[in-house]
Amino acid sequence: MQLRIPGPTPIPEAVRQASAGQMINHRGPEFAELITEVTQGIKQFFQTSHDLLLLTASGTGALEAAIVNTLSPGDRVLAVSIGEFGERFAEIARAYGADVVPLTSEPGRAADPEAIARTLKMNGPFKAVLLTHNETSTGVTNDVAAISQVVHQTDALFLVDGISSISSIEMKADEWGCDVVLAGSQKGWMAPPGISMVSMGPRAWEAYAEARMPRFYWDLGRARKSFERRQTPATPAVSVLYALRASLRLLLAEGMENVFERHRRCAEKVRSGVKQLGLELLADEAHASNTVTAVKVPSDVDCSRLLKLLQADGIVLASGQGALAGKIFRIGHLGMIDDADTEVILAGLARALPLAKK
Amino acid sequence: MQLRIPGPTPIPEAVRQASAGQMINHRGPEFAELITEVTQGIKQFFQTSHDLLLLTASGTGALEAAIVNTLSPGDRVLAVSIGEFGERFAEIARAYGADVVPLTSEPGRAADPEAIARTLKMNGPFKAVLLTHNETSTGVTNDVAAISQVVHQTDALFLVDGISSISSIEMKADEWGCDVVLAGSQKGWMAPPGISMVSMGPRAWEAYAEARMPRFYWDLGRARKSFERRQTPATPAVSVLYALRASLRLLLAEGMENVFERHRRCAEKVRSGVKQLGLELLADEAHASNTVTAVKVPSDVDCSRLLKLLQADGIVLASGQGALAGKIFRIGHLGMIDDADTEVILAGLARALPLAKK
Repeated sequence: MQLRIPGPTPIPEAVRQASAGQMINHRGPEFAELITEVTQGIKQFFQTSHDLLLLTASGTGALEAAIVNTLSPGDRVLAVSIGEFGERFAEIARAYGADVVPLTSEPGRAADPEAIARTLKMNGPFKAVLLTHNETSTGVTNDVAAISQVVHQTDALFLVDGISSISSIEMKADEWGCDVVLAGSQKGWMAPPGISMVSMGPRAWEAYAEARMPRFYWDLGRARKSFERRQTPATPAVSVLYALRASLRLLLAEGMENVFERHRRCAEKVRSGVKQLGLELLADEAHASNTVTAVKVPSDVDCSRLLKLLQADGIVLASGQGALAGKIFRIGHLGMIDDADTEVILAGLARALPLAKK
Repeated sequence: MQLRIPGPTPIPEAVRQASAGQMINHRGPEFAELITEVTQGIKQFFQTSHDLLLLTASGTGALEAAIVNTLSPGDRVLAVSIGEFGERFAEIARAYGADVVPLTSEPGRAADPEAIARTLKMNGPFKAVLLTHNETSTGVTNDVAAISQVVHQTDALFLVDGISSISSIEMKADEWGCDVVLAGSQKGWMAPPGISMVSMGPRAWEAYAEARMPRFYWDLGRARKSFERRQTPATPAVSVLYALRASLRLLLAEGMENVFERHRRCAEKVRSGVKQLGLELLADEAHASNTVTAVKVPSDVDCSRLLKLLQADGIVLASGQGALAGKIFRIGHLGMIDDADTEVILAGLARALPLAKK
């Protein structure tokens, strides 16, 4: 089976076995070792020397944590959105009473640093800017480094969703001045869903001290305090942490730069293979994602039939979300993937396409 | 190793193997079957015909979900607390702006229905009553049936934390008129932590429609809508659901009444064995819990040394929490436990006690 959706991703055998480990006391010494190793490994991929905290939750929970730990109701927030997950980040801020100014791009386009600079200048001041590093719904990667430059010409906090990028695409949280960055275990980390990760820089902690949105489960101050004893405030998803420890060992043994290069290479193979089949990419190629490729469904092809044919052939791809449902399909190529897998995916697509004609 | 803390609990071999299953599309047909079977199994233990929704979170997340889905800031809430987890429930309500009236008991005592009735009458009206079914920190089980009677003499909603009871101790959510009931996978369910469960009765949904506390990740309306398509709003902890499916099959094959009886029997053995060692129980025996026993540390025994000696002997017990730290230790006897295990625990305790003298 080729599970090629943009998460959950396939789990290496060694990681699956690790995840089946027996339970331990989450207030004991074995757990302290576990959370220490996992946290240190994740921090390498975040490229942060600041606090990195773990939450038992889906990535969406980490989006919520980023909001409620730094903002107060009424705070003006610039929500840069290039797709479904950008919308979700904005929607959470709105649910908690932020004054959200949306800045959206057409599906497939990256966020434009100049447009962000203009909006920051003309509609500001803003307390925070929300950005999706890699938009899973359209297969587009934003240029965080460039956007960071314009954000930091103001005092705004920079909150970055790295759920479908970090561990597969380079993130330099500290160098790029990302105050809060978040990710989720079921993406390039090659672990099951259930743990999300949030980094908090010094400016984020300053904001935390003032923030008045209600928080308890997502309270990263409580998480930081528990982590001093190498614990978590509530019972953590121990088996997912076992998996993460094993998968981080695999990723770090391969080497971060090699992991990124493998993702670049596989993504390039998928994109060029898709185009050779006469299909069009949704993403502006200058910003095409190395973890997920969104492909336009030709007008004479039935998308749902195509995905069913592929599934019967052992290849599971994802449909489009929201307004893109039926108009695109998506190939996840993150985590446990190599060149041979891209060939299997493309060969399956070549077989299924002619059979999926309307 | 005898992991005998009140959760996480030991996982049966078949359940561990199931949890190592390969990932699947959480928007596909296999997941639909998975969530359907797990939800139906859990509903049997909740004894509810109403909605039962799953969250990727620790039990504390489910406490928060119970609050934010039914209440508005300023709502008057009676928080019946007999220990740490009752306090936590109250603290979450306070964090979201509820007007919390606490009603506490001495550690080891159950909540008194008459005291609740008096408070409801004299300090009301209340929008909701918060209750812990089984208090993990003191080893006491509240009489939900009796308390339900006095709560339902008013219009208050009845929100019940069943985290360390349900699947081990009987819960009749519908018959007892519990409007919201919640539980967590790492307790008697014999699965790893990461999934929590919340039932919502018709009165809870009425309250939901009016409730104004901010919510997004915990929004049970979104969860209900997703469940119509047998999905979850955010990516769920798939491997924990695999485990739950396997463990529910074990529990249901044993039979609910047999599972409860086994817990009653093991708890009784632990309590009488502890007393035979000359130790005192913290709990009022009329309300002693069948999932966890809190034991008073004799004045001549060093609690920390006792727990370390036991650990070296392969038996992991829990210390006291909060004000009870160092004053009690706790034996978890829920989930995968049988008579032979109780004997191992008691024998280990008999060996360690004389060596742990101050």
